[in-house]
Amino acid sequence: MSELVTDLRRFLDGPYAAIRDRVRADLARDPRTTDTALSIDEQRAATREALLALAGSGMPAAGFSRDHGGTGDIGASITGFEMLVYSDVSLMVKAGVQWGLFGGAVENLGTERHHAYLEQIIAGDLLGCFAMTETGHGSDVQSIETTATYDPGTSEFVIDSPSPSARKDYIGGAAHDARMAAVFAQLVTAGPGEEPVSHGVHCLLVPIRDSDGHDLPGVTTSDCGPKGGLNGVDNGRIVFDHVRVPRDNLLDQYASVAQDGTYSSPIENPNRRFFTMLGTLIRGRVSIAGASGAASRLALAIAGRYALTRRQFDAPGHAEEVTIADYLTHQRRLLPAVARAYALQCAQNDLVSTLSRIQGGAEPVDPGEQRTLEAQAAGLKAVASWDASATIQTCREACGGAGYLAANRLTTLKADTDVFTTFEGDNTVLLQLVGKELLTGYADEVGGLDPVGMIRFAVTNAADTVLERTPMSGFVRGLLDATKREGDEPDLLDRGTQLSLLVDREEHVLETLARRMQEARKAEGVDAFAAFNAAQDHLVRLGRVHVERLVLESFVTKVAELDPSDDELRFVLDALADLYALSVIENDRAWFLEHRRLSVGRAKAVIRLVDRQCRRLRPYLGDLVDAFGIPDPLLDVEMLG
Amino acid sequence: MSELVTDLRRFLDGPYAAIRDRVRADLARDPRTTDTALSIDEQRAATREALLALAGSGMPAAGFSRDHGGTGDIGASITGFEMLVYSDVSLMVKAGVQWGLFGGAVENLGTERHHAYLEQIIAGDLLGCFAMTETGHGSDVQSIETTATYDPGTSEFVIDSPSPSARKDYIGGAAHDARMAAVFAQLVTAGPGEEPVSHGVHCLLVPIRDSDGHDLPGVTTSDCGPKGGLNGVDNGRIVFDHVRVPRDNLLDQYASVAQDGTYSSPIENPNRRFFTMLGTLIRGRVSIAGASGAASRLALAIAGRYALTRRQFDAPGHAEEVTIADYLTHQRRLLPAVARAYALQCAQNDLVSTLSRIQGGAEPVDPGEQRTLEAQAAGLKAVASWDASATIQTCREACGGAGYLAANRLTTLKADTDVFTTFEGDNTVLLQLVGKELLTGYADEVGGLDPVGMIRFAVTNAADTVLERTPMSGFVRGLLDATKREGDEPDLLDRGTQLSLLVDREEHVLETLARRMQEARKAEGVDAFAAFNAAQDHLVRLGRVHVERLVLESFVTKVAELDPSDDELRFVLDALADLYALSVIENDRAWFLEHRRLSVGRAKAVIRLVDRQCRRLRPYLGDLVDAFGIPDPLLDVEMLG
Repeated sequence: MSELVTDLRRFLDGPYAAIRDRVRADLARDPRTTDTALSIDEQRAATREALLALAGSGMPAAGFSRDHGGTGDIGASITGFEMLVYSDVSLMVKAGVQWGLFGGAVENLGTERHHAYLEQIIAGDLLGCFAMTETGHGSDVQSIETTATYDPGTSEFVIDSPSPSARKDYIGGAAHDARMAAVFAQLVTAGPGEEPVSHGVHCLLVPIRDSDGHDLPGVTTSDCGPKGGLNGVDNGRIVFDHVRVPRDNLLDQYASVAQDGTYSSPIENPNRRFFTMLGTLIRGRVSIAGASGAASRLALAIAGRYALTRRQFDAPGHAEEVTIADYLTHQRRLLPAVARAYALQCAQNDLVSTLSRIQGGAEPVDPGEQRTLEAQAAGLKAVASWDASATIQTCREACGGAGYLAANRLTTLKADTDVFTTFEGDNTVLLQLVGKELLTGYADEVGGLDPVGMIRFAVTNAADTVLERTPMSGFVRGLLDATKREGDEPDLLDRGTQLSLLVDREEHVLETLARRMQEARKAEGVDAFAAFNAAQDHLVRLGRVHVERLVLESFVTKVAELDPSDDELRFVLDALADLYALSVIENDRAWFLEHRRLSVGRAKAVIRLVDRQCRRLRPYLGDLVDAFGIPDPLLDVEMLG
Repeated sequence: MSELVTDLRRFLDGPYAAIRDRVRADLARDPRTTDTALSIDEQRAATREALLALAGSGMPAAGFSRDHGGTGDIGASITGFEMLVYSDVSLMVKAGVQWGLFGGAVENLGTERHHAYLEQIIAGDLLGCFAMTETGHGSDVQSIETTATYDPGTSEFVIDSPSPSARKDYIGGAAHDARMAAVFAQLVTAGPGEEPVSHGVHCLLVPIRDSDGHDLPGVTTSDCGPKGGLNGVDNGRIVFDHVRVPRDNLLDQYASVAQDGTYSSPIENPNRRFFTMLGTLIRGRVSIAGASGAASRLALAIAGRYALTRRQFDAPGHAEEVTIADYLTHQRRLLPAVARAYALQCAQNDLVSTLSRIQGGAEPVDPGEQRTLEAQAAGLKAVASWDASATIQTCREACGGAGYLAANRLTTLKADTDVFTTFEGDNTVLLQLVGKELLTGYADEVGGLDPVGMIRFAVTNAADTVLERTPMSGFVRGLLDATKREGDEPDLLDRGTQLSLLVDREEHVLETLARRMQEARKAEGVDAFAAFNAAQDHLVRLGRVHVERLVLESFVTKVAELDPSDDELRFVLDALADLYALSVIENDRAWFLEHRRLSVGRAKAVIRLVDRQCRRLRPYLGDLVDAFGIPDPLLDVEMLG
């Protein structure tokens, strides 16, 4: 491995080099990949076996606190799981369900008596599932219909699916493996002498299968059947017919029901309570953002190596046919995607570090920081999963017919990761969530994502700028200040210029949206919906431009921290950061022109500069993808043989 | 079925209503769909059985002339096969290999003695394959390595794969079913007293399997194994080790070898000969363009119906949760794609009609018309297959988790059609081909797609305008002339304005590219490659903008021909044509701004108008997708139940 590759890898690994190297070694020893020629039952069995083998690896334990039988290294846990994508996406998702979602719900929403399960959960002795989504309700979790009605006569909750649309659906593990479910339901109870009333969505532990795998009384599970991918995961459905569980089964960190039926919660506002509970489950989105990044890197490593070996057409001045990596159209397909992969990994490392600090620390969580973290996780998940979808597609096409053979991994990778754009929250909905948080300054009172909530809420002072609202490194702030003092024709290769173009875009999108929403508040009924609806794309856009700005900041901050003496590394990463920034601007240059942030001449220059950066980085393509550090046995595909 | 739906269907069916209705009835009677839960062997067996059943349907016979045992209705044949996509894409591809590629090569490249096979081929009694692509050579067919060396001693050709990269690869039917191959090879022969010399790529019939399915001596077939989709098609590989076939097995419509080894051809120029042979095989690309359109329509019908039933989130002024079709973001996902589906079907109908007229007629083919047709087929195949890829992806995401279940068809459809973007010619290469044809005025001398050929060729008079070079209906020309006389701020809803924006864009892209290529010709060696390479994206872009203009013309010409008294139909199709034109302009508005074809104000207006057209067309979403006329049993998926 050349020194440059080593240095690039260290840059990408960031604070997680140790766990990455350990998982690399594990994967190299056992380079299992998804085999789509197996039947679904066989794929599921192979994934289950791999899951149980993983239980002993220490990775699951890292995700839980020392008090609960874990080793308390959230960052290592998330990073380690993410890398399973290089091997088998089904295994990564199955592990995410067992330890991230199910185990995470027990640890974060439960109390001591529930934490007693964690040892079994960590060891894989108790397999569980996370029963939130219903057939009728995906993105709008607050509207789920499953009920958990407290019966003070027996001190039990009665779990029920009152309608076909209340059926729990797409639940990983529900078709076969899970013996217990963390069930989200509307909690209905009454204090003495009161009428029963719903207190909103809460989570309870509900045993669903006996040790022989048969449904328990009142529980009806079924199978979602073949999916577009991830066929190693047994997604299924659950219908509850008045299933009784003890009062203790309510995960009662944030709300409890006394034996007499009295409801109490330390969080008064039901909306805030709901989002606080959901907020503790943020790791799922962070994991999908990470897994999306891993998927993009795997695809780029395969297509990048292929581009360097595949030759087509003679070219003048070249002794033999040139490699396809020498063609501009091919460079344009791969190199901006490589730049995005680097930028996204920097942002992911930052996100995981922040998450570890906030959730793993001893101090109480600062609500503002938590909300910011949630918005960043939602936004990065959306942007990274769309990027993975587009990048893998591009890589498949860039390998032609060979790319279509399952042996070359790209089609399976595409199919397995495709659902990332819609699970753990639909991307379009998530970006609206990010937009709403920015628009309202992360205000506590803001409810769900329904149009009513959006419009009713007073938009906070729109004059607040993005700079004041979101954390920003001193380095970035310094660059922006320096840029503001100049004011000439922008130098597109100047880092401050690139940053300020993205910051300025975000501020403008936010300010204009705030004005629209203030207008919309004056409307009533159908008109209010129409006003919200007309601005919906604008809201999605705010989320996206915000994330693009954050990602650029992460990347360039890390590039700026490099040792100045390391010339080649700096040259390559500077060029890559330029390519990332310029390609973001290029893709949205209509906006920059329409808002007179770029002249016609500058806009055209952006295109030429992207071409130039592609040419400059062409000689480094192999090193750039080698630096991802994907174990060779996992890249040893037929077309590269 | 409402009158509007009937009228819209008639509009879309165009000249092929009769065959479409017949195939609709067939599919409704036997609504078989791909079952990915079957093993690959089972999927292949099911597809083979369906293929043999299809042989009796008359559709294959329609593709062959009456002189050869067919019924001579090319348009019906292509259109009928295209519709198999609604049922099973593997079957469509398998039929395309047997009757389009293999049968097409025998009919179009062969002479009487080969035509004797056609009866068996049409009946499915002789299954064949089309062995063109090699492991080392996909897009660059002229560089294939397989040789067919004439041996005058025995009057045989010796077929040989001289290197691993000469292996025939990805060949549909080669893994199992095909008994004979149409093999493309470098033809090497010598007249009496001459040294053997290669005369370029020719096609020969080579038996590869005996009636028991065993490889014949010297032939080694193997299996490409599981693919990203299309697992009902048995793609395989063939290696030839000095396999001897009689001299008669050369398909000798365009070149023959006398018994003494003397080579002769009615076409002197080897390049022209090669492209003439290839040109006769144009039906493959036309079929993939059609199949891509069918795939987009199927996805839109499923996602469109889902959007009208799926409710999420309460909205003010609405008694219940609104349907997701009521959200602007959702309208923006589906409705421009619906508009493209209508526009592309108009263009496809035109393409098939032209093909039928040129290839099905008694008159000799006009070379200029043939070249234009080839460029249009290549361009429409590229644009339609990329559209299908993006549209199906969008539709999958628009159906969330439900969209990911195989039972709801979208993931299988995506996987099965994904290879359309690269087979029958890689899209990026095909758009360069279109660009080159425009750049050189369809000149005969222009060779392959290699950079050398591109640069060496004298670009024809760049002052020729697009208008002069390509056929254009009187209606369109009239609109353009009327628009030219005005010259005010463009009215973006004016049809002439929309057209002239696209025509003007194409002219500008062509003219600037022509100037760049003239400069490039002055360069030598490595510099010449660099000059070509720097302009490569520009060339791809020329191909794309050309196709977008042609598609708009097809659509609006047909809308203009509607009965003026039919108010609602005209209203809907006018709005849809506006949406198509505006969304094409919106997607490329950076270009229109950079080239001062749109002011900042007009560019922003385009965005608002796309929103407005989406709102206007929202009430017609159901009718618009119902008009595709996809048989109900094929849309009867779980999530719509």
